Amino acid sequence: MATMKAVVKTKSEPGAELLDVPIPTPGPNEVLVKVLATSICGTDLHIYQWNEWAQKRIKKIPQIMGHELCGQVVDVGANVKHIKKDSIISAETHIACGYCYLCRIGLAHICENVRIFGVDIDGVFAEYAVVPASNAWVIEERIPNDYVSVMEPLGNAIHTVLGGEIAGNTVLITGCGPIGLMSILVCKACGATKIIATEVNEYRLHLAKKLGADIVLNPKQNKIVDSVLEYTNGKGVDVVLEMSGNQSAINEGLKVLRPGGRYSILGIPEKPFRIDLADVVFKYFTIQGINGRLMFSTWYKTTRFIASGRIDLEPIITHRFRLEEFKKGMELMETGNCGKILLYP
Amino acid sequence: MATMKAVVKTKSEPGAELLDVPIPTPGPNEVLVKVLATSICGTDLHIYQWNEWAQKRIKKIPQIMGHELCGQVVDVGANVKHIKKDSIISAETHIACGYCYLCRIGLAHICENVRIFGVDIDGVFAEYAVVPASNAWVIEERIPNDYVSVMEPLGNAIHTVLGGEIAGNTVLITGCGPIGLMSILVCKACGATKIIATEVNEYRLHLAKKLGADIVLNPKQNKIVDSVLEYTNGKGVDVVLEMSGNQSAINEGLKVLRPGGRYSILGIPEKPFRIDLADVVFKYFTIQGINGRLMFSTWYKTTRFIASGRIDLEPIITHRFRLEEFKKGMELMETGNCGKILLYP
Amino acid sequence: MATMKAVVKTKSEPGAELLDVPIPTPGPNEVLVKVLATSICGTDLHIYQWNEWAQKRIKKIPQIMGHELCGQVVDVGANVKHIKKDSIISAETHIACGYCYLCRIGLAHICENVRIFGVDIDGVFAEYAVVPASNAWVIEERIPNDYVSVMEPLGNAIHTVLGGEIAGNTVLITGCGPIGLMSILVCKACGATKIIATEVNEYRLHLAKKLGADIVLNPKQNKIVDSVLEYTNGKGVDVVLEMSGNQSAINEGLKVLRPGGRYSILGIPEKPFRIDLADVVFKYFTIQGINGRLMFSTWYKTTRFIASGRIDLEPIITHRFRLEEFKKGMELMETGNCGKILLYP
Amino acid sequence: MATMKAVVKTKSEPGAELLDVPIPTPGPNEVLVKVLATSICGTDLHIYQWNEWAQKRIKKIPQIMGHELCGQVVDVGANVKHIKKDSIISAETHIACGYCYLCRIGLAHICENVRIFGVDIDGVFAEYAVVPASNAWVIEERIPNDYVSVMEPLGNAIHTVLGGEIAGNTVLITGCGPIGLMSILVCKACGATKIIATEVNEYRLHLAKKLGADIVLNPKQNKIVDSVLEYTNGKGVDVVLEMSGNQSAINEGLKVLRPGGRYSILGIPEKPFRIDLADVVFKYFTIQGINGRLMFSTWYKTTRFIASGRIDLEPIITHRFRLEEFKKGMELMETGNCGKILLYP
Repeated sequence: MATMKAVVKTKSEPGAELLDVPIPTPGPNEVLVKVLATSICGTDLHIYQWNEWAQKRIKKIPQIMGHELCGQVVDVGANVKHIKKDSIISAETHIACGYCYLCRIGLAHICENVRIFGVDIDGVFAEYAVVPASNAWVIEERIPNDYVSVMEPLGNAIHTVLGGEIAGNTVLITGCGPIGLMSILVCKACGATKIIATEVNEYRLHLAKKLGADIVLNPKQNKIVDSVLEYTNGKGVDVVLEMSGNQSAINEGLKVLRPGGRYSILGIPEKPFRIDLADVVFKYFTIQGINGRLMFSTWYKTTRFIASGRIDLEPIITHRFRLEEFKKGMELMETGNCGKILLYP
Repeated sequence: MATMKAVVKTKSEPGAELLDVPIPTPGPNEVLVKVLATSICGTDLHIYQWNEWAQKRIKKIPQIMGHELCGQVVDVGANVKHIKKDSIISAETHIACGYCYLCRIGLAHICENVRIFGVDIDGVFAEYAVVPASNAWVIEERIPNDYVSVMEPLGNAIHTVLGGEIAGNTVLITGCGPIGLMSILVCKACGATKIIATEVNEYRLHLAKKLGADIVLNPKQNKIVDSVLEYTNGKGVDVVLEMSGNQSAINEGLKVLRPGGRYSILGIPEKPFRIDLADVVFKYFTIQGINGRLMFSTWYKTTRFIASGRIDLEPIITHRFRLEEFKKGMELMETGNCGKILLYP
Repeated sequence: MATMKAVVKTKSEPGAELLDVPIPTPGPNEVLVKVLATSICGTDLHIYQWNEWAQKRIKKIPQIMGHELCGQVVDVGANVKHIKKDSIISAETHIACGYCYLCRIGLAHICENVRIFGVDIDGVFAEYAVVPASNAWVIEERIPNDYVSVMEPLGNAIHTVLGGEIAGNTVLITGCGPIGLMSILVCKACGATKIIATEVNEYRLHLAKKLGADIVLNPKQNKIVDSVLEYTNGKGVDVVLEMSGNQSAINEGLKVLRPGGRYSILGIPEKPFRIDLADVVFKYFTIQGINGRLMFSTWYKTTRFIASGRIDLEPIITHRFRLEEFKKGMELMETGNCGKILLYP
Repeated sequence: MATMKAVVKTKSEPGAELLDVPIPTPGPNEVLVKVLATSICGTDLHIYQWNEWAQKRIKKIPQIMGHELCGQVVDVGANVKHIKKDSIISAETHIACGYCYLCRIGLAHICENVRIFGVDIDGVFAEYAVVPASNAWVIEERIPNDYVSVMEPLGNAIHTVLGGEIAGNTVLITGCGPIGLMSILVCKACGATKIIATEVNEYRLHLAKKLGADIVLNPKQNKIVDSVLEYTNGKGVDVVLEMSGNQSAINEGLKVLRPGGRYSILGIPEKPFRIDLADVVFKYFTIQGINGRLMFSTWYKTTRFIASGRIDLEPIITHRFRLEEFKKGMELMETGNCGKILLYP
């Protein structure tokens, strides 16, 4: 039986191992891809670090890690008709059942029976991976492999930014991890007229500025509430995109959101915390939890933004390693001194 | 100088007094009305009781209380052209400036400079009251005076229920005070296909059932989360309308809302409290703070629902007193054993 | 080989025949149902009459006619897991490919590769029929078989009425064929506060009144424009639902729609005709073409409206025949003196 | 009495005259401005040419022409509190009554009693002009006077482009007059990923390319339907913005709009013409008539796009004349060999 290299979570403890494992066989509704590029997400780091969330969420061990993917189709299941061998694909990482209430009302990304690559089933930090045909996103445009791998998190950013009105709006982005950084690009491409970004890590703050944020603020050095009000004539921003999961950032964001504004949250707060809902009522806020990507309207937009050059991902990809060097990537992610990190099998 | 009877908040302490005060004179952009009917809102009770909120919010004392109104125009300011003497009017109680950012983007009900009857300026628990022409809602249909007075809070219910999709949706209403009760009527009129209501007061719970709630639950006797899940095949409801301000009710509501659902809050929580925002993210919730009424699209709808008979307010008006008996009304409100209470000068 | 009775379009000319044909075999992703009830749609009549549209549209002859269905599952394909034998189902009649652009952005009902029962492939005017598992709508509630068969056209009505705001709106429905009639029920259930219906056939106009239209008008006897303006204080209606395909009805509808109003068209005009688009611009109209049902959020709503009793279909089902009597049904449809006609194999 | 120079429509026939007329006096709710810059709109040309539309629409003669404006406040009416002397303003040219149904449901731009500068009342092609305080748009940002004058038509473009989804969409703009050209800028700023523009005038087509259209097509040289399909992989565009009023352009636009797409019309067709509504139904189109600007959310966006530099109007302003040279401007407009033309009193 043919084998491949894969990064495997082998134990219920921090870390992961590079192992030789069997190359998987695609089922009748699946395709097998050779992984050309993959990239590290914050979720991968949580699983690697084996934090509280990971301990509760991960049921299957050993499991191949990773979910962001650029792959080339090398084998096609018997029932699959719309995907050809040799195609380049990215993958929607939420595998939906297609039949539950949520799937059937257009919310497949929060399917009741959702399974996620590298979380519920084997992932893509490997030389080969199996992808359900329904989740393969075939690339028909000229898009570099690296960007194909990064389409999934860019989709998160697009889903969040376009969760409500953005053109002609002022926006605060709290948190400049890779998706926060991508949100700057998306806001800019979609007509936000003032983009303010906050971040504690100076490397990322610098990147935020480079990507086009009009104003960048470090909460260690700036009073966020005062500064944002100053930059908005005392009115506050129309939209807050919360990407940090940090309690102070959330409280500050709610203070500078103008009445009637939109507060969209992608960042996952580690713990429940105190919020003044009376404020939400009096200020007529809309608070919106976001996850995943709309299947598949977000993917079309993602593809078009990249293919048209409206969004340039190059500055966000700051590091490139071989798959064997995944630990280096994980350690770098922990420092925060990076944008997106790619791994090549 | 002619005088009139009025219920006046005279001191920064619980209570209010019935006094003889001068009949006010309308300015050039105002009308003077003879008050035909007025009704008691929870806000009036808070001011009467002088609770924590009232102590912080009320700046002007002495001040005539009250804001819900049916009046007949007896004098018309010089610049007012679209309102005729003898017209019957209700009143939008949020007086907007018309020029701030929020007014000019269609959110006049949360105007930056809003003034509210009976809160910021003299109210309508009196024989006469002055109303800005911009806020007078002229009644051209056959609507009984009692219902005209109750249009303002019905507008709150309509604004909340129609804050998102409702037709063909299952809904939980937490809290059956007068606006909660009205929301049942609105949900029913607008095509909600299952209406579940919770309330601790048995009088109101009984009224909820009478008004058309499909299922009524008393948190003292029912496990709300279990019951709601049972009545929705384990799926939860599509929409929660929070009208109680109660922490347990809010937590339970968030537990039974299905992923991707809408959570609209009109009830004002007394204190900040702990919420699990991670849940909001993972469950893709939309949380929506609501107050006031859209000016004036909500008023058109309110008028039409009543005039067409689609909504019958009769069962909600449970008590009628003379204005002099306002203390009786306040005390009854405190017990919760009532629907809407009307006062007649 | 077992056979069954079926109504078959055998020739490119008016008419159809009752034949004995083989009972079909379900594929791995399909189910076989015993047809318990089926109903006649206007489309079936067009195919029967072999009108211009049918001559262009129908490619496959011979073909079993019909698409509205209540069936009981008697055989389940190998890959089908979410449908059990003996289940009662209705069927979404638009079979979508699942992979085209339109399918993937949430518009499966207008799939680029759509196939329709009784139009592109064999239909359900038969003792048995094969239905793709993806299109079977399993009935888990207590709903009479007759209503299950009628869910498909009711879904058209729901899709049209809920294509925009309806609660608190005044509405004109032009044309009271079965879907026009159902639209009256849906408008009423969803909070339209004034429902005006027009129709030339007195039988249907009478039915419209019975179903809850506030005002019914026969263009043969009433000046529609004048009457509608009179009934709306000269303002016109907020919404027009066009269900007639008739040129005069369309022109009149556009004349009585208030500026900024919604004009939703389900009725298919036989020929191109002259429209004053300048009016559309100056009056800031939204014109909306509707077909099919949202897959499957419309089906959930349809189910809930019926199961909750919010919508009562009984008065709309005016005639019931045995399948063998299909010609009687077709002829009755031609006269217009009917609501919905059911056929029982 | 002080006088000023003004361009006046003096007779019901082609042409206009430069006259000395009295400087107007502002009423209590108005301001008087010194006109710093004004610009020519297609409507002005129609009135100048005295075409069929102008003959029907213009009731008041003599009347000062023009409506696009940059002015400096020189006198302030007694009741006006939010505008200070010396302020620079632009003006919303639709003067709404504030009390009709349309005004009160958020559609003031199509007010039942609307009056328009230079159409119903004296306009701004003059040294001074009176503007109702409600319609004065105070400029608080650094915006060059020329751009202030051009904010009104830019608002039309913004209103049209943002009438539905645009980010990540492909779009066809039919007609590259000044508003069509501005729509290219707006589409680009708001994330349209492919912008195709059609225009018969080569000067304007060249300008369209310069402003950022991805593909420009001249119907005299290109088969529009074939070309657009080719540039969209045979799929058609998601959005058509119709800015030409031309029958062929409209028919072609409807042919290349993908099913479920948006068709927004700002261009005013000269005559009623034949349209295939069956296509609108089967293709599930939304056709949207647009005019004016949302009051005033469009104005906020307009201001922000210009002030932030997201939209650069410079290339659109192709000619600048003294007010006395207005005939030169009108004649140039007739040739189409221009973008926006400014006039300075």
